[in-house]
Amino acid sequence: MSAAVSPLAPKSYPDMPALRGVRMATAAAGIKYKNRTDVLLMVFDKPATVAGVFTKSRCPSAPVDFCRTNLAGGVARAVVVNSGNANAFTGVKGRAATELTGQSAADAIGCSTSEVFLASTGVIGEPLDATKFAGVLGQMNKDATGDFWQEAAKAIMTTDTYPKVSTCTAEIDGVTVTINGIAKGAGMIAPDMATMLSFVVTDADIAAPALQALLAAGVGPTFNSVTVDSDTSTSDTLMLFATGAARDDGQTRIETADDPKLASFRDALNDLLKDLALQVVRDGEGARKMVEITVTGAESDAAAKTIALSIANSPLVKTAVAGEDANWGRVVMAVGKSGELADRDRLAIWFGNVRVAVNGERDPDYSEADASAVMKHQDIPVKVDIGLGSGTATVWTCDLTKEYVEINGDYRS
Amino acid sequence: MSAAVSPLAPKSYPDMPALRGVRMATAAAGIKYKNRTDVLLMVFDKPATVAGVFTKSRCPSAPVDFCRTNLAGGVARAVVVNSGNANAFTGVKGRAATELTGQSAADAIGCSTSEVFLASTGVIGEPLDATKFAGVLGQMNKDATGDFWQEAAKAIMTTDTYPKVSTCTAEIDGVTVTINGIAKGAGMIAPDMATMLSFVVTDADIAAPALQALLAAGVGPTFNSVTVDSDTSTSDTLMLFATGAARDDGQTRIETADDPKLASFRDALNDLLKDLALQVVRDGEGARKMVEITVTGAESDAAAKTIALSIANSPLVKTAVAGEDANWGRVVMAVGKSGELADRDRLAIWFGNVRVAVNGERDPDYSEADASAVMKHQDIPVKVDIGLGSGTATVWTCDLTKEYVEINGDYRS
Repeated sequence: MSAAVSPLAPKSYPDMPALRGVRMATAAAGIKYKNRTDVLLMVFDKPATVAGVFTKSRCPSAPVDFCRTNLAGGVARAVVVNSGNANAFTGVKGRAATELTGQSAADAIGCSTSEVFLASTGVIGEPLDATKFAGVLGQMNKDATGDFWQEAAKAIMTTDTYPKVSTCTAEIDGVTVTINGIAKGAGMIAPDMATMLSFVVTDADIAAPALQALLAAGVGPTFNSVTVDSDTSTSDTLMLFATGAARDDGQTRIETADDPKLASFRDALNDLLKDLALQVVRDGEGARKMVEITVTGAESDAAAKTIALSIANSPLVKTAVAGEDANWGRVVMAVGKSGELADRDRLAIWFGNVRVAVNGERDPDYSEADASAVMKHQDIPVKVDIGLGSGTATVWTCDLTKEYVEINGDYRS
Repeated sequence: MSAAVSPLAPKSYPDMPALRGVRMATAAAGIKYKNRTDVLLMVFDKPATVAGVFTKSRCPSAPVDFCRTNLAGGVARAVVVNSGNANAFTGVKGRAATELTGQSAADAIGCSTSEVFLASTGVIGEPLDATKFAGVLGQMNKDATGDFWQEAAKAIMTTDTYPKVSTCTAEIDGVTVTINGIAKGAGMIAPDMATMLSFVVTDADIAAPALQALLAAGVGPTFNSVTVDSDTSTSDTLMLFATGAARDDGQTRIETADDPKLASFRDALNDLLKDLALQVVRDGEGARKMVEITVTGAESDAAAKTIALSIANSPLVKTAVAGEDANWGRVVMAVGKSGELADRDRLAIWFGNVRVAVNGERDPDYSEADASAVMKHQDIPVKVDIGLGSGTATVWTCDLTKEYVEINGDYRS
């Protein structure tokens, strides 16, 4: 694990308020790590509604399969998350482990296994000994408390250099509701892989289909717009739970995502998702710089996003950022390879507020000194105008440093 | 530029025979470098037929545009290649530079500008001073000689650590013909980008459409199956010329690519293209290991290639190889993210001859020691069987090392 906290870490953390309807506990089950917590239990004493989005990998982990199945019921009573073992590519043993964990949690809480959700992160290919959970979940349920968000975020870390938490409030029909979230990513320990896990809970009362629609819409410009190294985990999981406790304050249940009463909640949720997603990028392996890439003037928003991700995932762009090199030629290259419609002679490129290229060639007023000054900052905005249409997108990434290679290369020879 | 020759460089170079119908000269035009040659002129005293394949970038360089236009004529009398400046993203100045270079070459040789082909590699975004060529091409044409392949390969190098040459012979209708080729890639100097250039010449007599069909078919499993860092240059150019000098030995012109007399030639050409393509990978920036990735059992050959390239371009797979870490979990990840049909529970993975995973989990006979021993080799074969169909593909890549980051990061701060 990395010793030092990322230089891009937030300078301060919010006080995470307890949130009515959810209790949490952590434990050290000894899955892989010594002397640290590695299991998180979230308990909803009254059934919560639930939404989830998962990895697009064609080889998902066993817990992802388990969650997808249970999501159909739309009801959650418990979430069990472990670090240290991803329970991915573990064949029939993997399915057996999820079933045993689900049953253990159901027994501890007193609910159906179909109301349990699971996530695992860590080593892949090694069988997960789920009996370790059976021994701790009962006590965890007894100990679980509402004021435990920071600890919860810590228990699910792998090589993260800091826990990721976020909180905000919104109004629904005059009632103030709270949204709390935690996330982990994108660290890894050989032979692990980066995984993004995030769990968001609100005390609002929102029906599961509406919650799912909100989450599916919110993930596009947030978690699905960040990339560290273009590699997609088998285990990526983002879940949103609504405990409904705000009913006590008179909030009436929201049934559909297009309900105008959701305006404030939708904005708050999207802000929180963006905050957590950016915290993940800021903890990217070896990251020293954060890059915000905005593409305008593309044929469509989808085309703009494809171009922006092509830039964000280019090793040549990312190493140039690491070297504080205002190498806009590599940005042109990445636009060209994206496959989306582009006209070389209409491109314009900015680093920060410095326009470095316009009309398909170097800006006549180009100043190497001005461009280089932008590259010395920790946060670097890059803007590309394609000059063809009105499609726009923004994505975020980090630089590619020697430390990335070191963290992931292991150099164990 | 890198000081040391890549450890993956060929242990010996072939003697490159002169090839009837083509003469070459190099010169130091001072485009960017000091004390080295940076211009190559190839002259075909009798019109040669010509074929070409180019970058798929939507933002190609000016010379790529120039070649694409002239390719329609199917006739070549001269090729001018320079290193030190890519003439890419140079707007109207770039087009003017290609026109001036084409005219200078046509004047020097005594041919039409439509019979001239151009390629440039080096800095992008800086105007190329094409007047530098005008001063040297006349003398170069006088000096040009047939026995000059090694020097030709050197003149087009950028950060290549060794020149790339290959030669072979074939039989057409009982007549022995020769094929010679040179290539450069994939080095770079900030603010350059990697570019692959290759020029192949044969003395066979083959009509341009047949030559184009041979090249288009040959490039798929060779140059289009290698990747260093997934970034596509604006300037990639592969051209094939046939001088027709074998007519003197009685070879009758081949008019179509499906002529059965081409069997030996096709095989020889494909072998030569593969040899040059692998030399490019072996000189990948910072490369210490060569990885051959074979995918079998995919839904189709195209799906197999997509999966193989997903593995080859994964930073996590490439850093694991650099670290000599038999991290098959990352191979599973890369299969999963490719988007192609895969069934986790049918996957099998080999490093060398060591099967590390089968039926969607770690091989019951897995030996960490055996797998690690494979990873210590310089050349590492990885095989993945998808278990669904009969599609196969093989691609080649190199590892991702700290030296890659250093070469491309510049660290000039």
